[in-house]
Amino acid sequence: MIDAFGAMNAIGLVAFALAGSLKGADADLDLFGIAVLGMLTALGGGILRDTLVGRVPVALRTTGDVAIALAGVALALVLARLLGSRLRNHAAIQLPDAVGLAAFAATGALVGVQATLSPFGVVVLATLTGVGGGSIADLLLGRVPSVLHEDFYATPAVLGGAAFWLAVRAGVASGRAALGCAIVVLGLRLLALRYDWRLPTV
Amino acid sequence: MIDAFGAMNAIGLVAFALAGSLKGADADLDLFGIAVLGMLTALGGGILRDTLVGRVPVALRTTGDVAIALAGVALALVLARLLGSRLRNHAAIQLPDAVGLAAFAATGALVGVQATLSPFGVVVLATLTGVGGGSIADLLLGRVPSVLHEDFYATPAVLGGAAFWLAVRAGVASGRAALGCAIVVLGLRLLALRYDWRLPTV
Amino acid sequence: MIDAFGAMNAIGLVAFALAGSLKGADADLDLFGIAVLGMLTALGGGILRDTLVGRVPVALRTTGDVAIALAGVALALVLARLLGSRLRNHAAIQLPDAVGLAAFAATGALVGVQATLSPFGVVVLATLTGVGGGSIADLLLGRVPSVLHEDFYATPAVLGGAAFWLAVRAGVASGRAALGCAIVVLGLRLLALRYDWRLPTV
Repeated sequence: MIDAFGAMNAIGLVAFALAGSLKGADADLDLFGIAVLGMLTALGGGILRDTLVGRVPVALRTTGDVAIALAGVALALVLARLLGSRLRNHAAIQLPDAVGLAAFAATGALVGVQATLSPFGVVVLATLTGVGGGSIADLLLGRVPSVLHEDFYATPAVLGGAAFWLAVRAGVASGRAALGCAIVVLGLRLLALRYDWRLPTV
Repeated sequence: MIDAFGAMNAIGLVAFALAGSLKGADADLDLFGIAVLGMLTALGGGILRDTLVGRVPVALRTTGDVAIALAGVALALVLARLLGSRLRNHAAIQLPDAVGLAAFAATGALVGVQATLSPFGVVVLATLTGVGGGSIADLLLGRVPSVLHEDFYATPAVLGGAAFWLAVRAGVASGRAALGCAIVVLGLRLLALRYDWRLPTV
Repeated sequence: MIDAFGAMNAIGLVAFALAGSLKGADADLDLFGIAVLGMLTALGGGILRDTLVGRVPVALRTTGDVAIALAGVALALVLARLLGSRLRNHAAIQLPDAVGLAAFAATGALVGVQATLSPFGVVVLATLTGVGGGSIADLLLGRVPSVLHEDFYATPAVLGGAAFWLAVRAGVASGRAALGCAIVVLGLRLLALRYDWRLPTV
């Protein structure tokens, strides 16, 4: 179970770092800016998560996730040279991106339950871990975070976080609940992509 | 005294959530975005306050404030349907908004003194608790936070925070000082609205 | 050694507060906004640094740095009246600004090593302490932080942070390593200004 989860997390780190770096290249940032956008997109959600529960961010203490995210940035630089930077909404990036959203939301929910947050706190942490990195990257580029107005992207993380809390509350072990949460998020996100789901405006 | 304070806090949470949600609806966010803007406007100042003094944010640990803020978001959705979203600067929202600014600044100053911050730290915490949520919401919409260029809005919180610190320093009990701080902020804010006070530019 | 370092830190606080305040005046902020921009530019990097490693920010607990930064804001108000606000890229501000970048990067690296961060974490903390305040100020004005697309500004802090970590790793005492880090950052920054170094885009 930990292996499946670790693999999802690694896929997500690469996909998020790739998407963030390409966004930076599109916006004519220099190499430092591109690397910052890629790393922040991959690691920013987890940094927000840890800061909110009073932990020194894992990304600043250990090397594993950082190395994987750096590989994603390097991949983006190669792809941007080879193919131009028009990959961003390509299906080849949307699937691993959805996997990452699922893995990140599950770790967020897990950390929230471990920190004995309220149900609302668990949902916030799941969502923020999933979408926080990309939103910081959008803000750095002077854009309204896309999760606030576009697409059915944050909602799977919200529902996955709620599912996690309910499962733990019902006595499910947290490792198993995390996997269930990731499956809920991934399934909803893929359905949303397939059927072009959107939330209404007012 | 706690009751008066609790009531002011609740009024502020509803007013801030309402104002933030309407701002989100004006900016054509989807339902998730509107809820995020409303909740962040109401709870964001307190989350910044708690994070800066190393506490897990109250809004993620307990349910009371969250439920009240959610009611404000729901109210906004109803009002936006019924009346359109042009309520934002209406007097009906400015008075409870001023009450919220006063209550939030007072809790910020109180937390700052409890965390043994410097006088500057107490003033920063009072101000940030009062105006931080709305400023985050402005940033998410790609706008310069209105407190930085408009109106006499943050200044009452600055002065209230300073008054709180002076009162505690002079031996006033902190509960009483918090009420005094709230009264100073509310009074100054209402005078500013009544007489259209502004700070100079340079 | 501590004296040289303290002097560099003070020069940096004044230079950063001055640059931030002038940026605020240029953007037609009111007095509160100008002061916020100046104080955040000077103190924001250190606040981010402390928050990430779980410390209550020094700027909220002690008075020394705050008083120096306030002096920088006051100086900016006088200069903006006397000379207009076109000082920002003037050599008279670029040199003390480089000194500040060096001092701040060194304290960031030092705090990172004290908090037993990973090498990546130390580099992030050095860079963020150096460029975080100015970047927050840019964000508040709705601008892409200039370090992401312009100039060879963050890179000296990145390299200085790496040099610090290598030195400590090699057994150099941390006080001495901090001074070495500051010299690396200052030297690289001055060379970059002199020869107009830039990082490539993609």
